[in-house]
Order: sequence, then C-alpha cells, then structure tokens
Amino acid sequence: MQDNLYEACPVARSIQLIGDRWALLIVRDAFDGITRFSDFQKSLNVARNILSDRLKKLLEAKILQVRPASDGSAYQEYILTRQGLALFPIIVGLRQWGEQFLFSEQEPHSKLIDIKTGLELAPMVPINQDGNAVSSKDTQVKKIKG
Amino acid sequence: MQDNLYEACPVARSIQLIGDRWALLIVRDAFDGITRFSDFQKSLNVARNILSDRLKKLLEAKILQVRPASDGSAYQEYILTRQGLALFPIIVGLRQWGEQFLFSEQEPHSKLIDIKTGLELAPMVPINQDGNAVSSKDTQVKKIKG
Repeated sequence: MQDNLYEACPVARSIQLIGDRWALLIVRDAFDGITRFSDFQKSLNVARNILSDRLKKLLEAKILQVRPASDGSAYQEYILTRQGLALFPIIVGLRQWGEQFLFSEQEPHSKLIDIKTGLELAPMVPINQDGNAVSSKDTQVKKIKG
Repeated sequence: MQDNLYEACPVARSIQLIGDRWALLIVRDAFDGITRFSDFQKSLNVARNILSDRLKKLLEAKILQVRPASDGSAYQEYILTRQGLALFPIIVGLRQWGEQFLFSEQEPHSKLIDIKTGLELAPMVPINQDGNAVSSKDTQVKKIKG
C-alpha cells in the first residue's frame, strides 16, 4: 500500500482516516449524541492527549465539526458533518457483525432500534442496481482510469 | 469503554477485533483473493513482524483460517472464515464512503462491480424491518439485559 492519500483504493483511503480504534469509537459516540470533550473522555476512558489528537484528526478529515455549546456556555461541541453522518452504514455494519458473532445468547448487549417501529434494523446487505443481494463472490474490483 | 471483551456494545466489540488499519487492509486483500503471506506483504508494503502479528490476531478472532496451499506446495494459505466473509458489508461501506467523499472527479480509482450486471453495487443503506431506509436520526440504542 502506498502510505498516502493518493492510494487509488477507496477502501484504503477510508481506512487511513477511520481505521483506528479510537476514531471509530468517537464516531460511534457522536452518533449516540455525545458532543463534549469531557463526555467522550468519560465514555471512552481514554487519555486526554489521545482524545485530543483523534478529535483533531476527525476535524481535519471533515468528519466532525465544532459549534458553540447549545446551552450558551463556553464549551465547544463536536458534531458529525454530512460526511461524518454518511459513516452510519459502517457503524451499523460493525454493530450487526458484533451482534451476530461476538455475543453469547445470555449476554447483555445494546440493540439499535428503528424509533418508528420499535424494532431492530434489518441486516444490512450489499445489493446490486437491480436490488438483489450480492455476496463477495458475486463481485469484482475493477480499476478505473481517471 | 471497558477495555475487554465484556464490553456490552456490539460496535465496540467489533472494533476491538478489526478497528486497526492493518487488520482491515488484510481483510480487504483477502476479499480480493490474496491468500499468501508474501502476497499480503507485497500488497500492503508492511513489515513482516506486523503482518505476522495481525494475521495471528485474525486467526484467533476466527476471521481468517489457514489451509494447505491449493497448488500442493508447502505454503499455507489464509482464507476468510464464514465469520470473516460476513465482514463484506463493512468493507463495502468503507469503499462507498471513500468513493463518495475522498476522490475528486478525475482521480483514478477502483470500483466494485456486480459480475452478473457489470455495474457498480448500489449504495448500501441501513433499513428497518419494513424495508424502509433509516438514517441515524431514525434510530435509538436500547440496552438489553441478558
């Protein structure tokens, strides 16, 4: 892999920005409504310098943006940008894979429910343009010249 | 976050296993058909000790398994398990997010096509049990006791 943003594989480019445990957990927390430094720190139990570094990188990557605190205090709030909100399928994918393989029946765990129906989301499946489910065997990587 | 596998959030548990740049790139390469140590090394340009460590962790996590080389030689081949193959939506999600946000129009990049139709996959979207698309705002995390 070429270690730079000129990498031609979109998977690799994404991984350069969010292929990091803390970055992914911060994004998860942002989806769960956490906005403040101290709340991220409490949730993640992470060292301040690591949290600062990852928040800075997520701002630079345009995944998070800052806004003044909604309560008028001097705090800054970190919220997902449109580009950050578009990470939702990846977070749902991580959740569904974890639910399927990493928990035993009796173990307590959280679920992601659709507010309108009160039910868990359906399993997320890659589909083709006709709406049919495709597995990795049905697909092929094709190089495109710019 | 509790730094162990007793973490009750399925997103966090998944991230503990694959929230690592090299692990994710190895999984991507495995989906692209790479099976041998030397080919992973060539593709990723990664130090042997790091590659060994990550392959070992992916075996322990039951994401990869080894099999004798298909050509009868003494090499081992690393292939995705059923659990590893189930990471496909996450890899597709990383790809589609990268394609949407991290490339300019003219830049060369690879595409993932459905072999049958020859067309790119459709954008992957989380859906509820009725088949309707849901965004993060439509969802809520609910804690379930085991």
